[in-house]
Amino acid sequence: MSLPSLRLTASLAALGAATAVLSAPAAPAKAEEGMWTFDNFPIATVNQTYGVNIDQAWLDRVREAAVRLQGCSASLVSGEGLILTNHHCVVGCVQDLSDAQHDYVKNGWMPATREDEKKCPGQTAEILTDITDVTERVQGAGQGLEGAAFVQARNAEAEKIQKEGCGDDPKWTCQVISLYRGGQYKLYKFRKYDDVRLVFAPEFQAAFFGGDPDNFNFPRYALDSGFLRIYEDGKPVATPNHLTWNPNAPKEGDVTFVAGNPGTTQRLLTVAQLEALRDQQLPISLIQFSELRGRLLEYSTTGDEAKRVAVDPIFGLENSFKVYYGQQGALTDPAFMARKRQEEADLRQRVAADPELAARIGDPWADLERVAQAQRDLYLPYRQLESGPRSQLYSYAKAIVRAAKERAKPVAERRPGYTDADIAALGRRLAQNAPISNDIEEIYMAFWLSKTREYLTVDNPQVKALLGKDSPEQIAQRTVSGTRLADPAFRAQALAMTPEQLAASGDAMIQFVLANDDAAQAIRTQWESAVSGPTSRAGEKIAQARFAAYGTNLYPDATFSLRLSYGSVKGWTYQGVTVEPFTYIGGLYERNTGAEPFNAAEDWLAAEDKVNKQTVYDFVSTNDIIGGNSGSPVINAKGEVIGAAFDGNIHSLGGSFGYDGNLNRTVTVSTAAITEALRNVYHQPRLLEELGVE
Amino acid sequence: MSLPSLRLTASLAALGAATAVLSAPAAPAKAEEGMWTFDNFPIATVNQTYGVNIDQAWLDRVREAAVRLQGCSASLVSGEGLILTNHHCVVGCVQDLSDAQHDYVKNGWMPATREDEKKCPGQTAEILTDITDVTERVQGAGQGLEGAAFVQARNAEAEKIQKEGCGDDPKWTCQVISLYRGGQYKLYKFRKYDDVRLVFAPEFQAAFFGGDPDNFNFPRYALDSGFLRIYEDGKPVATPNHLTWNPNAPKEGDVTFVAGNPGTTQRLLTVAQLEALRDQQLPISLIQFSELRGRLLEYSTTGDEAKRVAVDPIFGLENSFKVYYGQQGALTDPAFMARKRQEEADLRQRVAADPELAARIGDPWADLERVAQAQRDLYLPYRQLESGPRSQLYSYAKAIVRAAKERAKPVAERRPGYTDADIAALGRRLAQNAPISNDIEEIYMAFWLSKTREYLTVDNPQVKALLGKDSPEQIAQRTVSGTRLADPAFRAQALAMTPEQLAASGDAMIQFVLANDDAAQAIRTQWESAVSGPTSRAGEKIAQARFAAYGTNLYPDATFSLRLSYGSVKGWTYQGVTVEPFTYIGGLYERNTGAEPFNAAEDWLAAEDKVNKQTVYDFVSTNDIIGGNSGSPVINAKGEVIGAAFDGNIHSLGGSFGYDGNLNRTVTVSTAAITEALRNVYHQPRLLEELGVE
Repeated sequence: MSLPSLRLTASLAALGAATAVLSAPAAPAKAEEGMWTFDNFPIATVNQTYGVNIDQAWLDRVREAAVRLQGCSASLVSGEGLILTNHHCVVGCVQDLSDAQHDYVKNGWMPATREDEKKCPGQTAEILTDITDVTERVQGAGQGLEGAAFVQARNAEAEKIQKEGCGDDPKWTCQVISLYRGGQYKLYKFRKYDDVRLVFAPEFQAAFFGGDPDNFNFPRYALDSGFLRIYEDGKPVATPNHLTWNPNAPKEGDVTFVAGNPGTTQRLLTVAQLEALRDQQLPISLIQFSELRGRLLEYSTTGDEAKRVAVDPIFGLENSFKVYYGQQGALTDPAFMARKRQEEADLRQRVAADPELAARIGDPWADLERVAQAQRDLYLPYRQLESGPRSQLYSYAKAIVRAAKERAKPVAERRPGYTDADIAALGRRLAQNAPISNDIEEIYMAFWLSKTREYLTVDNPQVKALLGKDSPEQIAQRTVSGTRLADPAFRAQALAMTPEQLAASGDAMIQFVLANDDAAQAIRTQWESAVSGPTSRAGEKIAQARFAAYGTNLYPDATFSLRLSYGSVKGWTYQGVTVEPFTYIGGLYERNTGAEPFNAAEDWLAAEDKVNKQTVYDFVSTNDIIGGNSGSPVINAKGEVIGAAFDGNIHSLGGSFGYDGNLNRTVTVSTAAITEALRNVYHQPRLLEELGVE
Repeated sequence: MSLPSLRLTASLAALGAATAVLSAPAAPAKAEEGMWTFDNFPIATVNQTYGVNIDQAWLDRVREAAVRLQGCSASLVSGEGLILTNHHCVVGCVQDLSDAQHDYVKNGWMPATREDEKKCPGQTAEILTDITDVTERVQGAGQGLEGAAFVQARNAEAEKIQKEGCGDDPKWTCQVISLYRGGQYKLYKFRKYDDVRLVFAPEFQAAFFGGDPDNFNFPRYALDSGFLRIYEDGKPVATPNHLTWNPNAPKEGDVTFVAGNPGTTQRLLTVAQLEALRDQQLPISLIQFSELRGRLLEYSTTGDEAKRVAVDPIFGLENSFKVYYGQQGALTDPAFMARKRQEEADLRQRVAADPELAARIGDPWADLERVAQAQRDLYLPYRQLESGPRSQLYSYAKAIVRAAKERAKPVAERRPGYTDADIAALGRRLAQNAPISNDIEEIYMAFWLSKTREYLTVDNPQVKALLGKDSPEQIAQRTVSGTRLADPAFRAQALAMTPEQLAASGDAMIQFVLANDDAAQAIRTQWESAVSGPTSRAGEKIAQARFAAYGTNLYPDATFSLRLSYGSVKGWTYQGVTVEPFTYIGGLYERNTGAEPFNAAEDWLAAEDKVNKQTVYDFVSTNDIIGGNSGSPVINAKGEVIGAAFDGNIHSLGGSFGYDGNLNRTVTVSTAAITEALRNVYHQPRLLEELGVE
């Protein structure tokens, strides 16, 4: 499915997708539709529909076992801090722990003892403990302000609330989350762990059998699972509130729950906003991702080490590409857009019919059409100059430069996100050591510079300032080879420097970022003033219109915060072809061609005579999920874990804008298959024992 | 501008762009708008507007000096067969004449004597001699037929007309051209030359200074010019009807004519057709071109020889990408689409107001909306399976396989395009020897196969048949290394074989194509039946509606046939920035950074003290042109050549769908600059003498 992750969340935010409200406006959510918050779950409906007996205690148990990772979801599955998630959520860590001599991505990570479990650089795990309504405080903070000032006042108030909730304690995360596109704000408080170790990862070719061609498709034969463990003070954390491991696959029609962190949905963007996505933001993303994909794919053919270091970047890029491609498919489907127009017309009609409401909210749709014009003009400079390249080294430099500039100001005048505590937290993130491929960094830098020149043109003053007399390739080479930012010790030093010291540091990447940062921040300010500020304000008014028109028994758009969806195990039929809900391990051997990416992993080939080919491998269900849900526990009515969701089918990609119960499906690797693999392919008795199966 | 060419023409055809009618439906064409046929040029309007005195004799002289190349335009500029065109129209030839030891692309091609001029493989030159109306015959042929049968009957009648006009004489080309989207059909007869030799090409970096970033932009400093010569019986052809070379640049406001072969415009596609382009065909092209661009760019960094062989493929791809990107810009501009909707509504209203007309034409707009649905379903399989890869070896194999299959049938049952004479002509084309890069061929094959699998999915039966148990890379390697089709002698042998002999030939590429050709032809038949046939029929009805509503004093959409446009030398103003109409040679040295692609060519650097920096280099004018016009002579009121058109500005890319006289500009390299370069940079007295300047 998706590294989607902070990267996805962030990049969708850059796409201008503020926050959303609801899918089916004129009617309550259809059966199985909805990514419900834990404080507003339709218990009665579910119990009635499926003949089950869930209650608040059931919900609390699930919540306490649900884990948020960077960009992914997960769950506690033993009393000793063991976490189940997807392989693709840990593959970055596996790559970080690998080197040219030890390719754990290819061969898998299977330490013999708990002592050999290694820390994943930068990985954190968060468990939601409390939800508090803070709507009035946040909405009050923006009152009477416009544009960038409005955005800043809101952000500052949210920061204040977070600070009050968690202080600077690194064991807690407090996050103010905008729900219903600004209709509600809630403070989510998480217990946070930052020593997260890699316990088990299968071979890449087992986890990602079928590769990009099979991604977002079904039938599927992928063991997309892995295990982590949370530690504190050097010891595994005791986690009595874990999910029970059920090693048996469900039956067709069985009820399924998915608890996780769907990243972003945009189900109630206005038609003008959807058209801006369709006509500008998604096309540019698809085009840029495609060219970069071509560069990385070709680079990966130049040698074994190039292939090794490119695996994870290519996976992330191809995955995002397919997500956007699927989204574009929905937005260019005339029937889909006709429904969106109809929904919008219905809501506007209801507003028009209620003079008091109409007077209170004005015409936010017209406001958003005006925003669309500004967005059209500003999008490319904002995207290129402020969002920057994928380069990790550039990101380090940018974070350090901005921290230095803000720290030089009095505290009250700093931008949100730059309190001393924030900068200290940044320091902890910068201290994480992860390997960096200079080749790939250079590709990222040269690509970004050449696209910036292409889209903004050579004669643009900011482009002239960026490039000077050099080519993109020369700057890429100079900044990547001329920086010490790959070294965490130097990052710590640099973070302590003043802007003047940074300028004198002689570090090529830092100097490059420093020279161009004012222009980048200027375009950011313009964007906030003309686009994100007015968008946020209009979104809030539309949310008020929705609450007034349809009531509040609705689920909010996804915001990478904990949600619960319900559904059942079920295949689907499309254009006359019916897809069954299960695959079996035996099917892997039938689909194996020996040629990448349809070559079965070596350990699986070796184990062919030992594995039970009748075991359910992957299955699909009607749960409503989206990128960010990767690794979510799939749970039966008893609250036991029966799999890890790792993908949606191709139809589910339009789910960003609307759910279709006939076609949208969640794809899950079964605990049955994981158990079988641990027993007969990878021979991991210590894990089986910990999971309570023999 | 564009290799646009047959490649562009063909690929736009694949985009489903049938044929078009007119830009400004409700009013006569605006001043300067229009790509007029030579038999319907608005002489009076032009003479009146510009105070000039052109007449039929003037038009005939220009027509007789205008030359059509593959995908480009050109003109005769001496009495001994000398042809002026663009460098980018001859760079393929320059590359063909180069090898790893002789890089004429980089260093230029400047033979000392006429005897050293070398034949360009496959290049032809055609001069229009007659135009005959054949509308009734062609329209009559389709009567009473539908779908694929309709398309085939029309094509067969057009072939018959062509055969009657030119027989099998290789010195003549007869072509039935559809004008006004099927409103008229005309037989164009050309004198054809197939011994075309390369006379002069400057250094690549002089011709294409600024590279892709400057392409379709202005100000510009590019010597995008080159010379060819037509030979017959081993001697230069005597061409008394040539244009006179005027070595002086025009002044601002001077009238300018451009005679050439604009490839394709789509100015009166219906809104449904434009939306299909916007939502499916252009996005897929942009995405695929981008990924392939990334692959080729990265490949070109792997060594000097890789860089050399990739120059032309990358240029062609980036150029096409930018064309499509510009087109997409127009189609996603809300104001532009609103005008298109308004125009369509106006025409439909006029039809509705005329019951006789309405009864005669029915509702072709509704027909096209139904086509859009079929097109949506068939486009990807048609594009992937029938259009095939960019690979030259694959193209050879496909041509040979199809010829063999058709030749096995009785003449009356063959598809159009496969008479014995057609197959003989194919044999002559296959005999042309051009170097082939196996590396790039493999990239093309692997890319195409992987995209076919991606878009049609692994479980599609045709994809299964294509790939079998192999990866795209394995098939690419096997077919490219296992074919003898790079050898013209083997191509001649293969063309003589039966399908059975081809199957037994042991040639990997031929066998691969043979195994998949039935499926490709099947999807082609479906496409003709459900898409191109009904589109053509509806287009014709809309053309009738237009003639009825607005009269016949209109220009037809571009069809890569000879047209004349008029305008004047003029800059433009956009978003407050004014661009002057001229650049001067001195500006080249100011823009030179030394870094690719802004590094001035070596001979120009060496000549800096000798050249006259006040010479006009490039200039812009308001002429209405499009891809295919590359190399067109720009002509003054006296009928003298004053430059070679080589590009449009960025705004002109929307010109595919409509002309905007405020912004659309033609970009031309002046004869003044070419003269100065021949004199003081490249020292070519023999050419200067032939051009009549000392």
